[in-house]
Amino acid sequence: MKIGIVGATGYGGVELFRLLSSHPSIQSISLYSSSQAGENVNETYSHLNTMQDQLQPLEPEHMKEELDVIFLATPAGVSSELTPNLIGKKAKVIDLSGDLRLPSQEVYTQWYKKEAAPESVLQRAIYGLPEWNKEAIKAAKIIANPGCFPTAALLGLGPLVNERLLDPNRIIIDAKTGVSGAGKNPSAITHFAHTQENLQIYKVNQHQHIPEIEQQLTIWNEAVSPVTFSTHLIPMTRGIMATMYGELTKDVSAQQMHDCYQAYYGEHPFIRVRKQGQYPSTKDVYASNYCDMAASIDERTQRVTIVSVIDNLMKGAASQAVQNMNLVMGIEETTGLLHVPVYP
Amino acid sequence: MKIGIVGATGYGGVELFRLLSSHPSIQSISLYSSSQAGENVNETYSHLNTMQDQLQPLEPEHMKEELDVIFLATPAGVSSELTPNLIGKKAKVIDLSGDLRLPSQEVYTQWYKKEAAPESVLQRAIYGLPEWNKEAIKAAKIIANPGCFPTAALLGLGPLVNERLLDPNRIIIDAKTGVSGAGKNPSAITHFAHTQENLQIYKVNQHQHIPEIEQQLTIWNEAVSPVTFSTHLIPMTRGIMATMYGELTKDVSAQQMHDCYQAYYGEHPFIRVRKQGQYPSTKDVYASNYCDMAASIDERTQRVTIVSVIDNLMKGAASQAVQNMNLVMGIEETTGLLHVPVYP
Amino acid sequence: MKIGIVGATGYGGVELFRLLSSHPSIQSISLYSSSQAGENVNETYSHLNTMQDQLQPLEPEHMKEELDVIFLATPAGVSSELTPNLIGKKAKVIDLSGDLRLPSQEVYTQWYKKEAAPESVLQRAIYGLPEWNKEAIKAAKIIANPGCFPTAALLGLGPLVNERLLDPNRIIIDAKTGVSGAGKNPSAITHFAHTQENLQIYKVNQHQHIPEIEQQLTIWNEAVSPVTFSTHLIPMTRGIMATMYGELTKDVSAQQMHDCYQAYYGEHPFIRVRKQGQYPSTKDVYASNYCDMAASIDERTQRVTIVSVIDNLMKGAASQAVQNMNLVMGIEETTGLLHVPVYP
Amino acid sequence: MKIGIVGATGYGGVELFRLLSSHPSIQSISLYSSSQAGENVNETYSHLNTMQDQLQPLEPEHMKEELDVIFLATPAGVSSELTPNLIGKKAKVIDLSGDLRLPSQEVYTQWYKKEAAPESVLQRAIYGLPEWNKEAIKAAKIIANPGCFPTAALLGLGPLVNERLLDPNRIIIDAKTGVSGAGKNPSAITHFAHTQENLQIYKVNQHQHIPEIEQQLTIWNEAVSPVTFSTHLIPMTRGIMATMYGELTKDVSAQQMHDCYQAYYGEHPFIRVRKQGQYPSTKDVYASNYCDMAASIDERTQRVTIVSVIDNLMKGAASQAVQNMNLVMGIEETTGLLHVPVYP
Repeated sequence: MKIGIVGATGYGGVELFRLLSSHPSIQSISLYSSSQAGENVNETYSHLNTMQDQLQPLEPEHMKEELDVIFLATPAGVSSELTPNLIGKKAKVIDLSGDLRLPSQEVYTQWYKKEAAPESVLQRAIYGLPEWNKEAIKAAKIIANPGCFPTAALLGLGPLVNERLLDPNRIIIDAKTGVSGAGKNPSAITHFAHTQENLQIYKVNQHQHIPEIEQQLTIWNEAVSPVTFSTHLIPMTRGIMATMYGELTKDVSAQQMHDCYQAYYGEHPFIRVRKQGQYPSTKDVYASNYCDMAASIDERTQRVTIVSVIDNLMKGAASQAVQNMNLVMGIEETTGLLHVPVYP
Repeated sequence: MKIGIVGATGYGGVELFRLLSSHPSIQSISLYSSSQAGENVNETYSHLNTMQDQLQPLEPEHMKEELDVIFLATPAGVSSELTPNLIGKKAKVIDLSGDLRLPSQEVYTQWYKKEAAPESVLQRAIYGLPEWNKEAIKAAKIIANPGCFPTAALLGLGPLVNERLLDPNRIIIDAKTGVSGAGKNPSAITHFAHTQENLQIYKVNQHQHIPEIEQQLTIWNEAVSPVTFSTHLIPMTRGIMATMYGELTKDVSAQQMHDCYQAYYGEHPFIRVRKQGQYPSTKDVYASNYCDMAASIDERTQRVTIVSVIDNLMKGAASQAVQNMNLVMGIEETTGLLHVPVYP
Repeated sequence: MKIGIVGATGYGGVELFRLLSSHPSIQSISLYSSSQAGENVNETYSHLNTMQDQLQPLEPEHMKEELDVIFLATPAGVSSELTPNLIGKKAKVIDLSGDLRLPSQEVYTQWYKKEAAPESVLQRAIYGLPEWNKEAIKAAKIIANPGCFPTAALLGLGPLVNERLLDPNRIIIDAKTGVSGAGKNPSAITHFAHTQENLQIYKVNQHQHIPEIEQQLTIWNEAVSPVTFSTHLIPMTRGIMATMYGELTKDVSAQQMHDCYQAYYGEHPFIRVRKQGQYPSTKDVYASNYCDMAASIDERTQRVTIVSVIDNLMKGAASQAVQNMNLVMGIEETTGLLHVPVYP
Repeated sequence: MKIGIVGATGYGGVELFRLLSSHPSIQSISLYSSSQAGENVNETYSHLNTMQDQLQPLEPEHMKEELDVIFLATPAGVSSELTPNLIGKKAKVIDLSGDLRLPSQEVYTQWYKKEAAPESVLQRAIYGLPEWNKEAIKAAKIIANPGCFPTAALLGLGPLVNERLLDPNRIIIDAKTGVSGAGKNPSAITHFAHTQENLQIYKVNQHQHIPEIEQQLTIWNEAVSPVTFSTHLIPMTRGIMATMYGELTKDVSAQQMHDCYQAYYGEHPFIRVRKQGQYPSTKDVYASNYCDMAASIDERTQRVTIVSVIDNLMKGAASQAVQNMNLVMGIEETTGLLHVPVYP
């Protein structure tokens, strides 16, 4: 397989490059960058010291004929313009940005404050959450790789919402993320002296991942009303934890709830449901494609607490994109992805 | 004023020592430790290098006659036994542990899994949340200094619960704390290589601070039912953020809600209510006695998100204890406490 | 005393503001900023939430007549231009930048790559290392506050170099600093996701603090030749450790060396020499004006290892500037500076 | 190949397990633990959640006949006793502890304060620094895997010492390590609240890795006299940087020095020598087997500064052990080790 990565110098792009470099089915990886074409990737990333890969300028005509898969690891607004020029020939497009995840142009523009992709592209884009959408992904030409927060939240909520065990009007998601989610560009809120020994909350009920979450929840249960969603910046580089609160629609025992999760995820290699009474930490999935989760019922309140953790750059971005690539290319889903998490 | 600190080698004790060392009304500070009596405090704490203070053995009879204020910065279970021997003479007792905060022996034993203090002591203990209990504190002999999580949660919830603006059956508290809250003793979950780059959730709906929170909430509104409460360990040393979710009982505008907070806290020097649309970070209050807070209404859901931050060792422990000391000794409440937060 | 802080929105300026806010001899503090005049300081720093201090434009004519002390906490190159307009009247100038520390214009320009201050200003500037230069400081009109690395290195080397116990041709300084030393402006090497879990070395033998160190060393022993000096960026916000290596010029016992340090520093309130066999950590002096140090002789090699730690924003910048202010204004040297270090 | 890991629940053991789990030549991995036999490895390490590997009790007789390679990832003092029982049959032993690195029993006991391994074992143990000892490793039965600090220091010093370009009497090594080097057991100096925002120096000129370093240096140049060696604990989990200072024995240009390093390491896949003027950071080699290095000559002093970085748990322990396994088993040296470093 011949692979192209557009936006190779961002965190998502360089993580894709790391994963694909050791993927056994890859024949070649081409790196593209509109702003840094001509440079070697190791000028930006000294950990790639000995890599000789040069950043190339975008050539859509050539790319769509020569490459099997094109990953777009570009900022919001870029894929909308780029994707129409990359489809129609051999290449399949996997977009890691938020541009192709919302079928409605209006909703996109409202939350992203940018012009939406063409309707024709949006209609063909398949939402790439493999544990819930595998067959559609396998047949896709364009895959919208899920956002980091939606991946953690949806995987955790899925079984209970789909079974209609959760009150659709009272879903609260308290999300926490490592700082790498903010990307490579330095800013005041990611400046070390400001971020270290600091816990910040931001975009309260205003994060652009909210419509992406709600859209999938309403697929599972059309009665779901808007969710409460807040995001916290944790002084660490990698990891997302979504702590979610809900109310049960009927009497369910702890064992039944655990069984429900097992029934949905028992066969999915990247979901690890914890034993009752145990909760995952973000480091449990560091640098891996796993999503670890647990759900418990508080006997005093009968409310449910669901905890879901991922590595935001992996299952929340690059490794999930590779999982989608495996599916769309007809390879075994776990190929090149069974890394044991890095610990400590 | 002559002061004694029992349990001076714990984090609470050493922070008290730091604050009282620069307090203008203090004549002498005596440090007590049952396990390390005879040692100099700088053998445990090298940052106190030049301090010549020796740890003394406990002498309750002498202490209660000679000291004006005795701080108990001891682990759960110790104050229950110690307090009866320290009262009845001159000394006032300010207990930083959880032993005297719950009037019901049964509730204490249920959550702390220890024997409770005598009824006679519990009945005399005043809950030391100065912004809500100032007059009782001034007249107290025994003060139960609030826990770190309850301080953050209660100060944030107080105005809305007391005004009955919050649905009493749907209060959710998602708490996050720095690691110093776990104290000085090394353990697997506070081991640096484990804690760094890690976000852990623990004691979901089982934290011993839950009854303390509920007890005060029901004072404000007797209709409050059990709360949902989860605690997260953040890879930082100091700071607590409580993110709280609730539903309004009636139509309230953002401005009205902000005015409500201002009405309650406008005259309280250590509460800083943020402008609408701004949220506090934990570093905003680092090494200070401030509690910064904000509340907002999500227009899509009409639910309220309240954010409250403190330094867990300061307003969550030692500096709040000094604030209580000031009140009970008839000194200006802010004496020795108007530190500008340490930043960056 | 009426005080002005120029460059009040940098880390040095805001730390000065924190210290002076609780200094008992200060009547008023005026904050100046050329770029942010008209803003309130709390727009830049949310931890100053309730402070109502407005940033003022520079008015040198007015300032030099009305203010007792003007602190310049400005980037390199600014004080050179500003100082001539601020002297000659009542105000004393304490410059925290490197502009006035090197008497030679040529040396300054070589290392700082900027135009030097006028000769007349440089000749009047007194190097503000209080433990070694107290009398000159007391009589100064202009004080060049030492750099962070020079403070740590010189205080540690002083006794042995001044006693000519150290081979003047073989002084090696391996310096380590927290990230706040790089200032408030975000950059690639202070971006959290890059800095966390990373140890970086930079400006090897090229740091602009080198001539400042060598100049003072040659005052103590004119035979001192150029030093080896490397700087490391530690993933923490505050703190400097200088680990220094040298060779003895004659046979000295460990006890004699310790006595030598005690003889020099025993009466200096901010220097804490450790017991033999103990070494200081940076957290021992966190948020304080202390410099802790230790020196040992390796029996196998007869070489000396000297360790010196400071808080780079305090003894390495703001609190040392306040110490200089106390001296130049005839106040007790320790006024407003005896903070117990913040720990943990 | 059938592999056994003794001491599988320590950081070295669990890192070996991670690497070998994705090594293409491994048929089976057996985990051994004397203290935790019978438990599943995921009871200690939740990141190994789905691994079903049970910890087995040691059975030396069986192990030495059935296993191809036995890794000993045990604390100092254990391999000394264990190794004699594991040799003589099929199994090759790779010891990650310091027990077999020092041929002299007397030197071992002096630095490790423990009883040394039998002479017969020590004489057969080959020092496993592949870049310098490849042929001997290939033929070994017992491999003493180098310590973390010696690996970083020796790889950096090797070319210049072996070429006798470095004054053998003036080698200074200022080493810095992440906290995982202290292992899995919680302690006061690795307690998060103490370690975070702290830089500690320890074992100044007393670290047990000193004789290991000197022994190899004297192999390269028998004139090398004792080195100065200090170790610093950096508030990060992984990574070692050794900053080394020396004096040239003859006039060498920067280009010649760089060429010297290239001549030694150009063909070694895991050594990456930086371009002149660039220095490596520890994160450049995170979770990889690389050792990145640079050396420069200070024109002012003619002294050399050498910087060498590794991941202490990888090239400083587990991945170097796997590199040794590859060599001793006749597999391509890089098999299972060409991980791109994890960044950010």
